[in-house]
Amino acid sequence: MSVLVAGTTALDSIRTPYSENPKLLGGSASHAAVAASFFCPVQLVGVVGSDFPRKYINLYRKHGIDLQALEVVKGGQTFHWSGEYEVNMNNRRTLETILGVIDGWMPALPGPCETAGYVLLANISPQVQNRVLDQLRKPKFVVADTMDLWLNITLEEVLRLLKRVDCLVLNDSEARQLVKEDNVVAALPKLHQLGPKYIIVKKGEHGSILSSPKGLFVAPAYPLHKVVDPTGAGDSFVGGMMGYLASKGGSVDSHLRMAMVHGAVVASFCCEGFGLQVTTKVTQEKIAARVKELLKITKL
Amino acid sequence: MSVLVAGTTALDSIRTPYSENPKLLGGSASHAAVAASFFCPVQLVGVVGSDFPRKYINLYRKHGIDLQALEVVKGGQTFHWSGEYEVNMNNRRTLETILGVIDGWMPALPGPCETAGYVLLANISPQVQNRVLDQLRKPKFVVADTMDLWLNITLEEVLRLLKRVDCLVLNDSEARQLVKEDNVVAALPKLHQLGPKYIIVKKGEHGSILSSPKGLFVAPAYPLHKVVDPTGAGDSFVGGMMGYLASKGGSVDSHLRMAMVHGAVVASFCCEGFGLQVTTKVTQEKIAARVKELLKITKL
Repeated sequence: MSVLVAGTTALDSIRTPYSENPKLLGGSASHAAVAASFFCPVQLVGVVGSDFPRKYINLYRKHGIDLQALEVVKGGQTFHWSGEYEVNMNNRRTLETILGVIDGWMPALPGPCETAGYVLLANISPQVQNRVLDQLRKPKFVVADTMDLWLNITLEEVLRLLKRVDCLVLNDSEARQLVKEDNVVAALPKLHQLGPKYIIVKKGEHGSILSSPKGLFVAPAYPLHKVVDPTGAGDSFVGGMMGYLASKGGSVDSHLRMAMVHGAVVASFCCEGFGLQVTTKVTQEKIAARVKELLKITKL
Repeated sequence: MSVLVAGTTALDSIRTPYSENPKLLGGSASHAAVAASFFCPVQLVGVVGSDFPRKYINLYRKHGIDLQALEVVKGGQTFHWSGEYEVNMNNRRTLETILGVIDGWMPALPGPCETAGYVLLANISPQVQNRVLDQLRKPKFVVADTMDLWLNITLEEVLRLLKRVDCLVLNDSEARQLVKEDNVVAALPKLHQLGPKYIIVKKGEHGSILSSPKGLFVAPAYPLHKVVDPTGAGDSFVGGMMGYLASKGGSVDSHLRMAMVHGAVVASFCCEGFGLQVTTKVTQEKIAARVKELLKITKL
């Protein structure tokens, strides 16, 4: 099966104490689509302006990503995020955001996308996420990612979305914020009450937690000696996870734990370079080797 | 086999936004000794004043802890720590520390302690830890815990200690501080260079990492819905771990991963009550049930 990934397709300029990296390929959908592409065919739903470099289109194509649903707005400017990391790579601040063509964008899905089975609503406004869902016939498994921004400015639309998706992915501080509960484990049942049958809380270098009808699963992160740029790691995690799930088919419950491990491994590569620089050089062999290693270092 | 536990035996007064808890049984050795006692016989090396409540002596005894090496200083005041936790239970600050009889204390081990095989130098000054080691004949496995205070005020003595122990246990911020390395995974080889063959980095609710000749092991924490008081959780973790190891005997490498899981479970009980209130009510059955659950929620 294939995965449909909708989200932002962006140019990211990332500054760290050690380097400047202007106009990298970025955005939640870019990271997630490339991550998923190692496991299965991917359809990308996004929008860019005519300033979007041809080389990035080629990069998507190199990964076999179907671009039928990537809108190119003539004369428009691509969404641009620029941010800065501190020395420890944990704190980042946004320097500038130019919405460009993403401002008010509402995707219209081409016919072949309407029958998508595995759907990843990567981080973007919940209005867009809901609009994508409106156009799908009978998806098998829908995952939504979100961020604090949407919880702050358009909570009602997030809550409407949550009633329609199978799985919500968010980070620990967002989980606490959404249900006003300091303890992440205690937050899980409250998050289920908002709709999703599956909740996945991302904790960065500390791994992730799944709460599902089968109970809890505590997933490890791949331990990295060096983090170059964590931007897109969460998107890579969920993209890799969805790609693995779609490649397996069958029961989600049977494959979700291993899917999270594969997502964690793709996310680890993402952190080792700026933007998608390392992720796009990954091979299935490299992923398999790191999965094997991760299983070894968590085995009891 | 038994475990010899040396460290602080204290009275702790713990304040949270919800309650005041004066003069609880506390101290690194108290938490670690009780934690170890669920698995094997324990010898406690510590010092208290004549103000130390009889009920706490009885509590040690109830756990079968050998008190031959617990010095009672007539007219002396027991070490007293008082601290306060913030709402999220992650940040704590010390309100008052009264060293009392622990000030300048140097333990003299009675004969039966000298042949101890499994030795836990729980958190106390490295001078005391070194002095305990000086008196041991041929220990099989020596673990030292430490804290930022000793890295700040008596680093040389810590470094001398590290050349003499098999395993160092410390938390992630202390690991970073000790070898001046922001990334915990990258800190591990540098920590080994200081002496210990085994390094265990505690990450609280995020579990722990072991680095050993057998490679890395990422151990989970038991996910808790509610943390009442995390004081002593790290001591309980390492105490439970050492108790389990001693109960198994044989090769440390064969049992260390499972020992860390047992330590994590005892630590989870510790967090559910003030001081040792919940830990001292734990049974082997309750530990076994939680271990089983922890294995289930991490299984792939």
